[in-house]
Amino acid sequence: MDLNLPIGIFDSGVGGLTVYRALHERLPNEHFVYLGDTARVPYGTKSLSTIERYAVENAKFLEAHGIKLLVVACNTASALALPAIRAAVGVTVVGVIGPGARAAAKIAAGKKVAVLATEATVQSGAYAAAIARIDPSIQVIERACPLFVALAEEGWGESEVARAVAQEYLSDLRNEHPGALVLGCTHYPILRETIGEAVGAEVPLIDSGAAAAAEVQTLLESKQLSAKQSERDAHERELCDDLDHFYVTDAAERFAKVAERFLGTAPAVLEAVEVWGHDELKTY
Amino acid sequence: MDLNLPIGIFDSGVGGLTVYRALHERLPNEHFVYLGDTARVPYGTKSLSTIERYAVENAKFLEAHGIKLLVVACNTASALALPAIRAAVGVTVVGVIGPGARAAAKIAAGKKVAVLATEATVQSGAYAAAIARIDPSIQVIERACPLFVALAEEGWGESEVARAVAQEYLSDLRNEHPGALVLGCTHYPILRETIGEAVGAEVPLIDSGAAAAAEVQTLLESKQLSAKQSERDAHERELCDDLDHFYVTDAAERFAKVAERFLGTAPAVLEAVEVWGHDELKTY
Repeated sequence: MDLNLPIGIFDSGVGGLTVYRALHERLPNEHFVYLGDTARVPYGTKSLSTIERYAVENAKFLEAHGIKLLVVACNTASALALPAIRAAVGVTVVGVIGPGARAAAKIAAGKKVAVLATEATVQSGAYAAAIARIDPSIQVIERACPLFVALAEEGWGESEVARAVAQEYLSDLRNEHPGALVLGCTHYPILRETIGEAVGAEVPLIDSGAAAAAEVQTLLESKQLSAKQSERDAHERELCDDLDHFYVTDAAERFAKVAERFLGTAPAVLEAVEVWGHDELKTY
Repeated sequence: MDLNLPIGIFDSGVGGLTVYRALHERLPNEHFVYLGDTARVPYGTKSLSTIERYAVENAKFLEAHGIKLLVVACNTASALALPAIRAAVGVTVVGVIGPGARAAAKIAAGKKVAVLATEATVQSGAYAAAIARIDPSIQVIERACPLFVALAEEGWGESEVARAVAQEYLSDLRNEHPGALVLGCTHYPILRETIGEAVGAEVPLIDSGAAAAAEVQTLLESKQLSAKQSERDAHERELCDDLDHFYVTDAAERFAKVAERFLGTAPAVLEAVEVWGHDELKTY
């Protein structure tokens, strides 16, 4: 395995950039190839079989590109499609559900855990199952908050409107006194402050993407897969510089605009591609 | 042409049900076949070429099903893909932009027209172009209101939150004193009351779907394509009864749930299908 291969990241769209940022911060010597499936976003309202098909197509595209590890940034794809992805590609695959669940179970210390996620992730029960495997005594409260995605993309994450939406979704969670709250959708860290206000400052917020980045670091070290110091000094590397390559399946211009909102900068290298092959599809 | 063939309606998802309702009310003798492309919704953030491809696949699916007329309920597909759809199918195709523009230009009587729509529809400038063809002196103000879609699907169309969002998007439109405001996305009629409050009761709201339904009625009559009185008395027919067939490309259960929110009833006949063929797609 070439240690200087990039780490692959895929997401249903632009939200996975919060996971890219967490990986970039933690692993300044690594470079990344990111695929956002913007032609078929969102996954959170779609069915298991459709999400599996899309996720496998994305994973195969990144594997063909040449990567040393694959991070499934999308919570919905992690919740529903990890077995299908692992069956389809040869590289090690890291999702965000397991890391988020482990971080939450650890910090919640026996109290309830609240999980905010898409409709599909909530329906899958993936977080509850992952937490139950660690500590079956922990009660998990899962809640879909679909408006948070639109608010984040609109750049309204800390607006009055966002605060009203968060109140509507979350105010009753205060009475549950959760020991941790999982931001179980890549968009939700953009509303971190707003969500924190709604549930109360005493509730620790777990960003599943950041938890996954920590586990990726450990994994690279234990497998001796960490990159050598790159040609440029690591400290000079900036988010979205030309060593990190971004692909989208549609609407690159809109992706760049929302990337700027999320990261403060747009990708230097951004290209639109098609990731779907003939053999995966049926005719009508 | 068999007059008892259904009228085809396609939309990117569930929003087109507002157009179905308008058609059903106006044409009680007709029956309908509706396709919601829920596997690839939304179209409003996607590119021209992607929207064209999806729209053509949907139109061909409905034509193969057997229809006497095709209504493109989706504003985004109407704005961007009508020429591609008309080139791909033999039946008469009615979009919603032209009817909405004509109704607005007529009622605005020389004053400005405001158009609320998706990002892709706004970027296309389709409404402004259509209104300019009727009366080039009318100034058109177009605005994307993406949060309205999530609010409608969440069932929050008339909530405090929706009113706050509408204020944020629309309060400055009051100063423009528009002579008409076009609801240029199928979801927006669900927020009709809320939008009306935000812009002021004196501004007439034009539902492009309802305007299209009126034009479809005229078209059927002039082409002598109206259905004979159906086997059941027209007055007995209810929304979503078993004479109207609904197809979705994914997640039928979620479609039924939102349909119930939008129409007060879920389709009696609802089936998940795939509409994409091999020949339309490239490999990577």
